[in-house]
Amino acid sequence: MKNFSEIKGSLLSVRGIHTAAVSCGIKKDKKDLAVIYSEVEGNAAGVFTTNAFRAAPVLISEAHLQNSRAQAIVVNSGNANACTGTVGFENARETAKITADALHLPINKVIVASTGMIGIQLPMDRIREGVAKAARDLRRSVPDESAEAIMTTDTFPKSVTVKINLPEHEVFLSGIAKGAGMIKPNMATMLCFLCTDAVISPRLLKKALLWATDQSFHVISIDGDMSTNDMVILLANGLAQNTPITEENDAFSLFQEALNFVTLQLALMIVRDGEGATKCIEILVRGARNKGEAKQIAHTIAESPLVKTAFHGERCLWGRILAAIGYSGISIIPDRVNLFYGPVQIVSKGAGTGQESAALEILKQKEIKIMVDLNLGGGEARVFTCDFSKDYVTINMGYS
Amino acid sequence: MKNFSEIKGSLLSVRGIHTAAVSCGIKKDKKDLAVIYSEVEGNAAGVFTTNAFRAAPVLISEAHLQNSRAQAIVVNSGNANACTGTVGFENARETAKITADALHLPINKVIVASTGMIGIQLPMDRIREGVAKAARDLRRSVPDESAEAIMTTDTFPKSVTVKINLPEHEVFLSGIAKGAGMIKPNMATMLCFLCTDAVISPRLLKKALLWATDQSFHVISIDGDMSTNDMVILLANGLAQNTPITEENDAFSLFQEALNFVTLQLALMIVRDGEGATKCIEILVRGARNKGEAKQIAHTIAESPLVKTAFHGERCLWGRILAAIGYSGISIIPDRVNLFYGPVQIVSKGAGTGQESAALEILKQKEIKIMVDLNLGGGEARVFTCDFSKDYVTINMGYS
Repeated sequence: MKNFSEIKGSLLSVRGIHTAAVSCGIKKDKKDLAVIYSEVEGNAAGVFTTNAFRAAPVLISEAHLQNSRAQAIVVNSGNANACTGTVGFENARETAKITADALHLPINKVIVASTGMIGIQLPMDRIREGVAKAARDLRRSVPDESAEAIMTTDTFPKSVTVKINLPEHEVFLSGIAKGAGMIKPNMATMLCFLCTDAVISPRLLKKALLWATDQSFHVISIDGDMSTNDMVILLANGLAQNTPITEENDAFSLFQEALNFVTLQLALMIVRDGEGATKCIEILVRGARNKGEAKQIAHTIAESPLVKTAFHGERCLWGRILAAIGYSGISIIPDRVNLFYGPVQIVSKGAGTGQESAALEILKQKEIKIMVDLNLGGGEARVFTCDFSKDYVTINMGYS
Repeated sequence: MKNFSEIKGSLLSVRGIHTAAVSCGIKKDKKDLAVIYSEVEGNAAGVFTTNAFRAAPVLISEAHLQNSRAQAIVVNSGNANACTGTVGFENARETAKITADALHLPINKVIVASTGMIGIQLPMDRIREGVAKAARDLRRSVPDESAEAIMTTDTFPKSVTVKINLPEHEVFLSGIAKGAGMIKPNMATMLCFLCTDAVISPRLLKKALLWATDQSFHVISIDGDMSTNDMVILLANGLAQNTPITEENDAFSLFQEALNFVTLQLALMIVRDGEGATKCIEILVRGARNKGEAKQIAHTIAESPLVKTAFHGERCLWGRILAAIGYSGISIIPDRVNLFYGPVQIVSKGAGTGQESAALEILKQKEIKIMVDLNLGGGEARVFTCDFSKDYVTINMGYS
């Protein structure tokens, strides 16, 4: 029995959360700035990009989360404020400051995030106007347009909300995300903002977020590139007044399970909305010596342009998958490798089974499962990726 | 003063080398099988793919080269004979055997190579007919069509020939290669057959080939994929009767220099003929802590789909290059990084210089040089890559 259920809702389903999304002119005629605000300060946790070029907002938000507390998030799209030197750093700080002032908060209770073009200074006059307008517009009534305001090349807003039935209380958890390109399974490789009204200790909030990130945003890949700006933030304002979750009890397990669900759904939406993507492909590698080796092979397959273009062409070119396994850097025994497209075994002990025509039916579908069995041990890992299309190239040639 | 010069020629410029290229029906109406034959047995060296799934011909040719001697090469295109199990292994062996019989050689003097589709058994009846015909057709007169017979998705045959002026003798060196897709800078990632009439010891021949491969085929990347079939073979039949090169003297240096030239030219032809490629991009990384770190960063940039699509679009999206440096796994200091497009400095100390419009002129060219200076030490590495186009996707969707 599931003790949580997905509901039609938004960040506003979470008690005490207000949002505002405005168009301040960074992007032409599109929502490009959002503020998420909690009526009360809460515990908060974050996971940030491991890219050596970390954008100014990443550095500032990580610093603000030192004490694991936050009350507001300000995020703009259209400009990443990355590789912008000291001016960029000051602009990110000012964005946090004006948001804090408008909401009557200390600056370190504000998380600041940016996504979009690298290397261009934020237009601070527009940001100032946008933040002021958003602070005035904050509301708890529908529609919540924050998921739309954080989009870049995304083709649809991404939002998932659940109601969790704790033993004595209903708790809500909701998240928004943006992705599309530059998604590598190696960190919180996009923007994701999660809010919950659960009462939960900072230590367990961080633990739950790390675990959820590991099985969601860390196992998806669009093009193998990793951004300078990615972050996942989880804010828990405690307004549900449940018995505080301070140890790894049943309530914590339930919260974790729900958080895993929300983050995986958001991650899969990112894959399905991969730039130019037409298919979502799950790659399961099992029988590896250990999880790490399984993961490396799964990622190598998921990031091979030849594998991804073959999926786009709906062609059963399984040799490309074997070649990717072969150059993954992991030692394998070719004669033991089995490969399945859905239920169809296409390679047995390293050689083709001649079942290509049966696999073609599988390849026509939008959601495809590939399973590699190395027959070397008990290590297993799963990665989600998308196909590689001409539209990916068009989108990323930079003419848009 | 250069002691070697490129000449209009072919494998047939090398004393005692005969070639034949035939169409035996593996590919439709195209040359698909070649035999290269030396009038006398010679010393030989090879470099083979490190892919764990090594095709049958790779296994057999490596075994045949155990004694560093060879006299003939038989190669087919259109079918890779990879992932074909024991039947495939026997077919590769039989291909070597019938070639050896037709040429009256011991089987282990024959190198066998295949390139093309993975996972399909060789049509042995066609191979038998083709080998018989090629053995009859062997000739020392033009045209040499072997470079054409080994093409797969290549759009032009690749061949380079030089005359080397040793102190007392003229020596010839000629090579053919095929590439196009699945080229990763990690091994002899394509087929290349080199012949020379120099007298040179097996040890120095191997040493020269390894060094030449390291600065040519190992520093090019089309899509980051690495094939199951790649090999570079160098056959030295000694018919030039020069003073034997048995130590690292001036003659050896000269031979090495010429071999480096031939292999780098062939490697660059492969990049220029990358599937769907419109540009050849040289990525130089300097100022790294060591060569290995420079290499890893150069490859990460060269294999980023976002970087490659931006080059295709001729857009100065330098943030993508910085992001790739940042996720390369090498620790760097962002504030020290400089980036140049040709002579135009586009990033200074980790931030943009605003010179994008000057860079646009550079980006319109067919041959582009990018230089990253990390300012951390003396490590340097160079990688050649191509841009990423819609045609790459079309070619690799598998409809051709």
